[in-house]
Amino acid sequence: MERIYKACLLIIGNEILSGRTQDANMAFLGEKLNEIGIRLDEARVIPDVAERIVATVNEVRGKFDYVFTTGGIGPTHDDITSQCIADAFAVPLILHPEAYRLMLDFYGQEQLTEARLRMAHVPEGAELVENDISIAPGYRMGNVFVMAGVPKIMQSMFSKLAPTLTGGLPMISKTLSSSAKEGEIAGDLKEVQARFAEVDIGSYPFMGKGGTGVRIVMRSTDQQLLDHCAEQVEEILKLHG
Amino acid sequence: MERIYKACLLIIGNEILSGRTQDANMAFLGEKLNEIGIRLDEARVIPDVAERIVATVNEVRGKFDYVFTTGGIGPTHDDITSQCIADAFAVPLILHPEAYRLMLDFYGQEQLTEARLRMAHVPEGAELVENDISIAPGYRMGNVFVMAGVPKIMQSMFSKLAPTLTGGLPMISKTLSSSAKEGEIAGDLKEVQARFAEVDIGSYPFMGKGGTGVRIVMRSTDQQLLDHCAEQVEEILKLHG
Repeated sequence: MERIYKACLLIIGNEILSGRTQDANMAFLGEKLNEIGIRLDEARVIPDVAERIVATVNEVRGKFDYVFTTGGIGPTHDDITSQCIADAFAVPLILHPEAYRLMLDFYGQEQLTEARLRMAHVPEGAELVENDISIAPGYRMGNVFVMAGVPKIMQSMFSKLAPTLTGGLPMISKTLSSSAKEGEIAGDLKEVQARFAEVDIGSYPFMGKGGTGVRIVMRSTDQQLLDHCAEQVEEILKLHG
Repeated sequence: MERIYKACLLIIGNEILSGRTQDANMAFLGEKLNEIGIRLDEARVIPDVAERIVATVNEVRGKFDYVFTTGGIGPTHDDITSQCIADAFAVPLILHPEAYRLMLDFYGQEQLTEARLRMAHVPEGAELVENDISIAPGYRMGNVFVMAGVPKIMQSMFSKLAPTLTGGLPMISKTLSSSAKEGEIAGDLKEVQARFAEVDIGSYPFMGKGGTGVRIVMRSTDQQLLDHCAEQVEEILKLHG
């Protein structure tokens, strides 16, 4: 039996919960993690409240193989993620010599404000994750990867840390779209699902300008099984489309 | 002291976690709930796994004033939300007479397949929430509101249930954008935050085609306080923009 590696994403930030900013990191990570054989198995969006961050980090780092956080590692007063990660691991927040050197090189002594220096502080024991975009690094602390919230920076950090992750087999997926109605294919679909226990068959209705219909998404780590399953689903959709 | 009403959103669905589908319900609910004085205080995306859904529902319904779920109430085999809600409340799933009548009126006896009939089943004791778009209703069970995942249907359901919710004062927000750099305004901003403890000041850097900069978002239930705070933030941004 193939080991399944599971990850949890913590999106830290009031601005996502308020509806003002639409998160763009979850879909990116869901897809990229799968490519390296890691399933995004849960995501949580939590507010910028220290006790909530500490408690959630400690809960999920025990439950999942990997935890990724986004947001809250900038220079301003509302950037409290690093202190929370340090508290969660019960270690002090320290000035990281390499992070300091990177920041000093980039900003120079005069521009390296007290606020910017905050971004060179990491929990004791953390390993830096490079940031090609805006220098201030992310880091790994145990199985927790701490990244920026700005998508472009997060993506840069993820590209650096991804090669260090261990994953299993990626899920391969196959999608069939049809104008069939869910209520009419559901019985047959259930039977196909029963025959292919190792394929995860999802049925997703859609409504748009082009009309209504359904997308059947099949996922498995086994390409042959997936192809075989898709043939049978296709038959059903042909009958009802 | 004004009572603060808090809500948690549970997004149920593998398709969001896989990155294939971008969630659109969180931002909508965050904004709409705030308009009626309820804060979206947490959101979780969980897979279509019964034990996970049951455990999460039972955890969060005790912690938040309101819980909203989206997804998993359609007619297909992967729609398991209703059975999970019933299990979470330890009640049976029953055919709801009014839901049955609605579905029968709409589909007629012949088209009311076994699969569609599943959508007329709700946990015993649930109150229906009308669905203007595709008939099959959502419902309320205790403080848990169960809605469809398709955004258009979810929005229809929310518009019906919203008048039944009790909220407090809505958060009013004010946003100032600037080309200033976070690392240069952080010190001053922290001082303003210290002076205005009842205003939540968030600093969000952005990078786009139009250049880089920062948006300062101030939120409070008190308009006067907010205006006063915004004046001081504006001064800072002028100095550094």
